[in-house]
Formats: sequence, structure tokens, C-alpha cells
Amino acid sequence: MGKYHADIRDINFNLFDVLKIQRLKQFGLEENDYKGIIEEYNKFVENEIFPSREPSDVHGVKMVNGNVKVAPELHTLQKNFHDNGWFALGFDADIGGTPVPEALYTSCMSLATGANCAWMMYPGLSRAAMNVIRLKGSDFMKTHIMPKMMSGEWGGTMCLTEPGAGSDVGALKSTAKPIAGGKYAIKGTKIFISSGESDLYSNNIHLVLARTPEGGEGTKGISLFVVPRFKVNDDGSLGGNNNVQCSKIEHKMGIHASATCEMQFGQTGETEGWLIGDEFEGMSTMFIMMNEARLYCGIQGESQANLAYLMADQYVRERVQFGKELIHHPDIRRNLFRMRAMSRGMRALCMYTADLFDKVHETGDHKYEGLIGLLTPICKAYCSEQGFQVAVEALQAHGGYGYCTEYGVEQFVRDTKIATIYEGTNGIQAIDFVMRKILKDGGKAITALSGEIIASVGSLDEAVFKKEKDLFGKVLMSAQATMQHLSGLAQKNQFNLVLQHCTDFLQFASQMVVAWRLMESAKIAQTKLSAATGDEKKYLESKIVDFKTYCAHYLIHNLSISKTITDYGDDVTALEL
Amino acid sequence: MGKYHADIRDINFNLFDVLKIQRLKQFGLEENDYKGIIEEYNKFVENEIFPSREPSDVHGVKMVNGNVKVAPELHTLQKNFHDNGWFALGFDADIGGTPVPEALYTSCMSLATGANCAWMMYPGLSRAAMNVIRLKGSDFMKTHIMPKMMSGEWGGTMCLTEPGAGSDVGALKSTAKPIAGGKYAIKGTKIFISSGESDLYSNNIHLVLARTPEGGEGTKGISLFVVPRFKVNDDGSLGGNNNVQCSKIEHKMGIHASATCEMQFGQTGETEGWLIGDEFEGMSTMFIMMNEARLYCGIQGESQANLAYLMADQYVRERVQFGKELIHHPDIRRNLFRMRAMSRGMRALCMYTADLFDKVHETGDHKYEGLIGLLTPICKAYCSEQGFQVAVEALQAHGGYGYCTEYGVEQFVRDTKIATIYEGTNGIQAIDFVMRKILKDGGKAITALSGEIIASVGSLDEAVFKKEKDLFGKVLMSAQATMQHLSGLAQKNQFNLVLQHCTDFLQFASQMVVAWRLMESAKIAQTKLSAATGDEKKYLESKIVDFKTYCAHYLIHNLSISKTITDYGDDVTALEL
Repeated sequence: MGKYHADIRDINFNLFDVLKIQRLKQFGLEENDYKGIIEEYNKFVENEIFPSREPSDVHGVKMVNGNVKVAPELHTLQKNFHDNGWFALGFDADIGGTPVPEALYTSCMSLATGANCAWMMYPGLSRAAMNVIRLKGSDFMKTHIMPKMMSGEWGGTMCLTEPGAGSDVGALKSTAKPIAGGKYAIKGTKIFISSGESDLYSNNIHLVLARTPEGGEGTKGISLFVVPRFKVNDDGSLGGNNNVQCSKIEHKMGIHASATCEMQFGQTGETEGWLIGDEFEGMSTMFIMMNEARLYCGIQGESQANLAYLMADQYVRERVQFGKELIHHPDIRRNLFRMRAMSRGMRALCMYTADLFDKVHETGDHKYEGLIGLLTPICKAYCSEQGFQVAVEALQAHGGYGYCTEYGVEQFVRDTKIATIYEGTNGIQAIDFVMRKILKDGGKAITALSGEIIASVGSLDEAVFKKEKDLFGKVLMSAQATMQHLSGLAQKNQFNLVLQHCTDFLQFASQMVVAWRLMESAKIAQTKLSAATGDEKKYLESKIVDFKTYCAHYLIHNLSISKTITDYGDDVTALEL
Repeated sequence: MGKYHADIRDINFNLFDVLKIQRLKQFGLEENDYKGIIEEYNKFVENEIFPSREPSDVHGVKMVNGNVKVAPELHTLQKNFHDNGWFALGFDADIGGTPVPEALYTSCMSLATGANCAWMMYPGLSRAAMNVIRLKGSDFMKTHIMPKMMSGEWGGTMCLTEPGAGSDVGALKSTAKPIAGGKYAIKGTKIFISSGESDLYSNNIHLVLARTPEGGEGTKGISLFVVPRFKVNDDGSLGGNNNVQCSKIEHKMGIHASATCEMQFGQTGETEGWLIGDEFEGMSTMFIMMNEARLYCGIQGESQANLAYLMADQYVRERVQFGKELIHHPDIRRNLFRMRAMSRGMRALCMYTADLFDKVHETGDHKYEGLIGLLTPICKAYCSEQGFQVAVEALQAHGGYGYCTEYGVEQFVRDTKIATIYEGTNGIQAIDFVMRKILKDGGKAITALSGEIIASVGSLDEAVFKKEKDLFGKVLMSAQATMQHLSGLAQKNQFNLVLQHCTDFLQFASQMVVAWRLMESAKIAQTKLSAATGDEKKYLESKIVDFKTYCAHYLIHNLSISKTITDYGDDVTALEL
């Protein structure tokens, strides 16, 4: 097993040099306080989370006498995570949290996720469920349920998918019938429920999508319910069995430590739940969790890519072949530069997006909300896809050892893959991106973003970045042509043609955005370079190289991707398959 | 678990319409005989090989009382494979084989490999070892060892890798000391030995690279030895323990049914072996196996991609979301077209390459040997890499079900990955391709190949393939520019720059070759189209679509890959990492 590594310098550069989170005075903390938090958090990741990664993968999740048991390591880890206050990080103080800038919270969560993605899904889902309860829950939920989740006694889940309703959530069949006390009887089967059941928690709080008697077909007839595994008495104490059962644990390619459950509600007796949010507003209420979960999928790719890259970096510095360390072989060295540029590029994107949440509060400017909407599918799809590909490259850099479980790198390949699928497949993300975030938006958000990128490219120093400036200029022109092409198709109602190009255009736009974020970093690094020495100078130079590498190996493909869309887009629905 | 599928029509099209193997009269068989062989072979694959795939993956390989045990299913399968004469397919009649054209043999082996890649490695390695013995072995080996391998009683392996000698074979430390009777005492540790030991065979014949006392450093001092697990008496009967031991079974990401062993020679007593081939000629003798093994890696990618694609095709025709089968959703449909074009493109490439072996015998023209040398790293690296990527896309098409083991599609992802690593990593292939097969060759083989492709593009019908002809023309121009750039660097001894571009140029060349093979198929399909009806017409149209899809989604990227090499190739060895 390779050692744990973290590129704290790059995280700090993003936080303090690029995003300047020290500007956010409402948290009452200074730059050094934030750096201290990251340092302490990272120690916890290195000493407690990373060591659990491989054993909890090997152990997996087991059904013992009808109860779901996770790896023993995870019990200690989970307890220490809460006891050390790390679960509370990023929550508001009024519920016992430690509020910090969103980008800082995201950096910490990324370190934890990279080190054991499968385990991190337990606290991650609890957090997402808590956020729904905070925003939409009743006083009872806030008083008697949320604190138990905050302390780690109870966990949370989101229950959307059913056997016949995957991407098509609106096809779900679960029902919710009003019963006494303003409650509902929930009945149905949910599948692929992460953290659906486990012995990490004494109770699970399921957020379940179901249809009330008046709920019509499709997504518009769906409402959201809070459904505990064990009933919660009026005084908040644990009540009796609520007839919620895990009927099956899925065997999966990866994230073995995460319990992916088939859940039965109301099959062995009545299952009680409470409506949360308004009736028929289930989808929009659930989207509070979904958007968070989608960004988090991006982090799953980004974080594991960054750790996999650093483990590959360690390996190629140690392994000698043909009389020198692998890192000195040009082909291997090229691959490492590619992996670094991509991993750091994804980090820059995810942290930038996280910071936009603070910008919304800071400025009240709606444009940041539009930008978050636009960047959510990019973070989700691009970082999960490319995070997987970096994991594959990291495995490859290890040669035969990488294919063996012993070095721990093949686990990244198996674990990252899920992020391209759940919380809306990457195909669904691409459709959301083009159809809703661009076309339905009337191009507002993307035009604003493009304007910013154009200005930024315009001020790029030609003396250092001549080739990159030329390339980016061409990419921006092809971006305009491609968007005109797509909106032209939409105006002619040729939506099949638009739909078949969504995946390509999402990749195009993602690479433009990641290149832009790396460019911003490179510019800042350049301004600081003359005053820097030693390791700091090497680090700043690496930021310039990252941008150049990304241009040469990724952004450059935008020139051909745009041609696929505009010049070679035969209508696939008109062709026999 | 999805059903087994095989695209027999496409295999036959390659064999009889493109390659015209019916021209090869020396086998005494007609087109219908060949078709019958494929049909029967495919029945065996469907009924006996494919059903073993998932259980043998779940069972894996176990060490029981110091002996390596494989899944029980594999014993029956192995016996039936030999009893039905399928192992003998492709061998010469003089050793009990059924000689057939190489492309036909390759098609059959591809069907078997797609259905259970991990198992197929046992007969695959036996076959490769037998080929070395046939060409270089002593009469004793041919009389007493080869027949036992042919019958399936004994198995074969190739033992190259050592802990400090992976890609760098020349660094190996195993020794061979002359002893009585013209034999050698072999001593050393080999790792990652596929089929290193198993209870499928009563004896294993290891082909072991080791250094004799006079053997100098590096690859030039290495010789090859035939080393049986149990001694072979002068009369061919099984002798005593030869002190060959499996000291460890590797735990791997995939190919769980294949025993990947750490092997000890001469650690517990003397291990006897015979020299095979001349002393110090071990590498070139081993390359008889290696080249075969490299082409076979390509088949591992190609075959699993084709089956994974067909299983995804089945799934998207059955799974309904948003009121219609997935196949009618443009984004999914696009993905299926891409997968089909790539899978069939790889098949066309591999079968074309296999047929070149018959062309060598048929014509005696050395140019075909050069072409085989050039296409070997292309088949190995491109088909293993893209086979993996198609497997990933097939998983993705299955959504959440694809990530679960139940549907059997994630196994393709885990199993295909190894082919990018063993028998020389894809990085090593890229270096072999550019440094040896192009530069050391003085560009002879690639110039001949390019000439053929240029002529073929020239005669492409503009009425049907206007856009593709334009694109291919641009690609050919950039091919020339890129090759000039690379040979210019070589002339200036800037080999670091050449080396860092090998992977990119191998991908570029591979895509040009695959597009060419799909183009040839499309041209032939077009000539037959007017006379065709029904399913045959649909099939022929699909061949035209495959070529267009491949151009629009893969070949088009050559335009940017070439720019990465010629315009954005900063020297990575000059940059700090």
C-alpha cells in the first residue's frame, strides 16, 4: 500500500491566493486559523481515515441476522469523526456546527473523501438529509431528529430510485397515504439506497419520494417524506419498529464499504412518515439534497484523482527500471504531468464552485446562482469522468503492481466509477446542462461566464503564454459557433439533434472552464514568481506548467469535439441501430 | 446477468468479404466449412465458456495446502475444450492439430476470450509455450512434452518478470548453471506469472528467462529454459518434484479466475531445466511467445469490448425510461453507435493483422512481416486501451445495474484492464512502435502502409463519404507532418522529445489504421447494398454507419493529437516535476 499524501500547498493556493476566502469576515477567522483547520483535518485524514480505506473495502458490508454490518474499523472512525468535531464543520453555529467558508469546508471534505470515499458517504448523506430538514423540516424534526444526526447517533439517506424508475424519477410507484396525526403511511420498494441501513447508526432517517393519493403522474405528483427506520416518539425517544427493511445488499464493483441497499417500506406492516416541504413539491425539495449530492460526486472524482495521482507520483520516484527511476522516463513523466494538471484543474473547478455559495450570500447577486446551476453538471459529470480516468492512469503508472490490490490504487478505479452513474448519470447531467442550464436559461449564465473567460484570456501575458493564448482564442471562437449551432437546432425544434450532442458539448464546456481556472492560477503564480525562492518557486512554476499541460493535452481536443457537433452530427435517431 | 451474444455476421463479413480467407486453398476447406466451424465453436462458447465466466470470477483462485485450486467449473470446461478438439484448432496437422486460416482461428479465439478472458489464458499460454517448443525445442521436448500439452494434461507458462525487472527484462537476476546431462540448475523468483500453477494440469512447463554464468548484463546475456514443475523422465513419464513452487497468489482487480503466481525456482532444492534456442538468444526466442501474446492482448480488448457492447445493446433495448426504451434516447443511442464502431473497428484490425500471417506464407513477401511488426503494438495497445473504454461505456449504459456485479458487465471493466499492462505496458508498446517499428525501420513499413491508405482514401466515393474523405485527407496530411516532426527530432538526437510523444503518436496511427479498415468494410458494403434486402441490407448499411461514426467520434481527434505533438510539445524532461 502506498503512503497517504495531500497537496496542502495547492489547496491553500486555491483558498487564499485564488479565491481569497480570508475576505469572508463573518466567520471571525483569519487565514492562519483556516490553515490550522486544514492541517488538523488532514492529520485526521492521514491517521484515521486513510488507514480504514483498504480494510473496509476488503471487509465490505454484510447482512447478519437481517441487520447490515459494516467493517469494524468504520465504527471507531465514525465515532472519532464526530467526537473531534469534524462532522460539525461547515454547519451553522445555531445547530452546533462550526461555520467556515464553503470552499474551506469543501477542501476538507475532499481530503476525507479521497482517503475513503465509501465511508465518507455515510456522513455525507446524513449531512445532505440534515440540510433538507434545516430548510424545510418541522419544529419537531429540528428539535428531535436533527440533533441526533448531528451527534452521529442517527444517519440519513435519500430514497429516490425504484426498479422501474432510475433516471426517470417521475415513474416511481411508492405511495403515501394520509393517516392519523398528520402522518402518512409509506409503501414501496426503493433500490440503490446508499447507507440504506447500517450498524453505524441506531436509527436511519430516510428522505423518501412517494406519491400521495391526489398526486398525478410524473414528477409533478411526487412529495417528499421523512421516514425513520424506528419510530420517533413525541418526546424524541426511540419508538418501535417502523417496518422499514433492507431486503438486499447490492454487490458492486467498488465502494464496498458503503451499504447499497434495497429498502422495503410498509411491506411487513405500516410504515409511518411525515411530509416535508409542500405536497407535490417533492422533487424541488429533494433537489436541495440532489444539487449538493451532484457537487459531491464531482468531489468524489476530484479527490480520489488527486490522491491517486500523488500515490503514482510517489511510486514513479521510487521504482527503478532501465537504470533510472520511472519519473525520468519521458513517457511516464508526460503521464504524470497530465495527471497533475487534470487533478489540480478539477480541484480548482470544485473549489471555485464551492466559493460561489459564499458569493451568493456576500453579494446577493443572482448571477452567482445561475453560475452554480451551470457549473453543477460540469463538476458532477466532468470530475467524475476524469477522476475515473486519472485513477486509471495512476493504476497504469504502477504497472502490474497497480493491477494488484496490494498497492491500493486499483481501488480508486473501482470506487470512482460509481460517481459517473449515481445522482443522475453523466448523460442526464449533459442533458440538464444543455437543455436547462443553457437553452431554458436563454443562454444568460453561459454568456456571462463566457464573457468573463474572454476577458481573462485577453489579458493573458503573450510573452509566457503565446501558444496557450492562441489556442484559447480558437476554442472561444468554436465555443460560439457550437452554441449557435445548438441553439439554431433548438429553434428549429430539432431537439433530437441537440440531445445527441449534449455529452460532447458538456465535455467541451467543462474543458473550457477547467482551462480557465488553471489559467487564473497560472496568472497569479506568475505575479508571485519573482519574489519566490526554493520550494515556493517550484510550486509557482508548477502552476504555470499545469495550465500549459492542460492546454496541450485536454483543451486542444475542444477543436475536434466542436467539429463532431457542428460538422459530423448525423442524426442518430434517423439511423438504424 | 445479460445473455451471451455474438455478431457472427460481422465476423463472417470480415473473413469472407473483406479478407477472403476462402482464397487459402491449402487448408482443403470451403467457405461453408469455415462458417460451420465458427457456428460450432460459438455454440461451445455460448453453452460452456460464457456460463463459467461469472462463477469463476466469484470463486477466484485459492491456495489449498500449498496447491493452487481454480474454480470447479473450469475443470469441466477445460476438459470439454480439449475433448471437443477446440484447443487443437489452428495447430498443424502433424502434431494433431486442425489447421485453419489464422484469421479464422483468431475469430474463434476472440469469441472464447470475450466469454471468459481469465480462463482462456490457461489454454492461451499453453499454446504460446507450445509454439516455442515447436520452433526451437529438442526432439525430446517435441516427443515427450508437446503431446501432453496438446492433450491438455500439461500446461505452459512464460516466466519473464521479476520483482526488480518488469518492463526492464534485462535487469533479471534468475540464474541457470550447467549441470550433468546437458541440463541447467535454475534459481530465482519470478512474479506475475499467469497460470503459474493450477490444478487444471498435472504438470506445468515453464519457459523461464535466466542468465547463464557467461551471460553478461542486460538482455544480451539472457537465455531461455524449459522448466517443468515435476521432472520429466527420459521415457516421458512424470518424474519427481523439481522444486518449483508457487509462493503467493496475487489478489487482483480482475481476471480472478486466472492464477497470477509468484514462482520460486530452486529455492527448496535443485530445479532442472533445459536450454531452448541458443544460449544468450533468450530474448529473441521468448519473443516468439511475446509477439503472439501481444496480439492476444489486443484480442482480449477487442473481444470483451464486442461482447460488452452487445450486452449493452440488449439492455438498452429492454430498459424503459421516460416512456421509451433507452435505445430511443439520442444520447444513449449515440453511445451505442460509438461502441459498435469502435468494437467492430478493433475486430477489423485484429482479423486483418491475423490474416497477414497467412499472407506471409502465401506470398513470401517480407513486406507483410514488416506490417505485422508495425501492427503488433497497435493491436496490443490500442485494442487493450479502447477495449477497456468500451467496457466502461457498456457499464455506463447499464446505469446503476452496470455497477452491480449481478449484470456481469462491470467484470469486463475489471478484466480488460490487465491487457494494457502485461506483455509490455502500453507505454512500452508506444516506444516499440515509434523507436523500433518506425525509426529503426527507416520508415519502410509505415511508408508502405501509408501509401496503401492514401490510395484507398483516394478511391472513396465522394457521393456517400464526402465529409469522411475530407477528414481523412486532413488526417493523412497531419500524419505526414507529425512523422516528419518526429524523425526530425530523432535526426537531431532529441530522443527525449520523441519518447514523450510515442503514446500520442501510437494513438494517432492506430486511429488512422482502424478508420482505414472500417473504410474498406464500408466500401465493400456499399458495392453489395443494391442487391441486398432485409437483415442483410440493414447489416450492410450498418457498416457504412460504423465508418462514419468512427470518423466523427474518433478519427477526428487525430487533428488535435497531431497538434499536441507538433505544436505543444514542451520537453517534459526539462520541466520540474
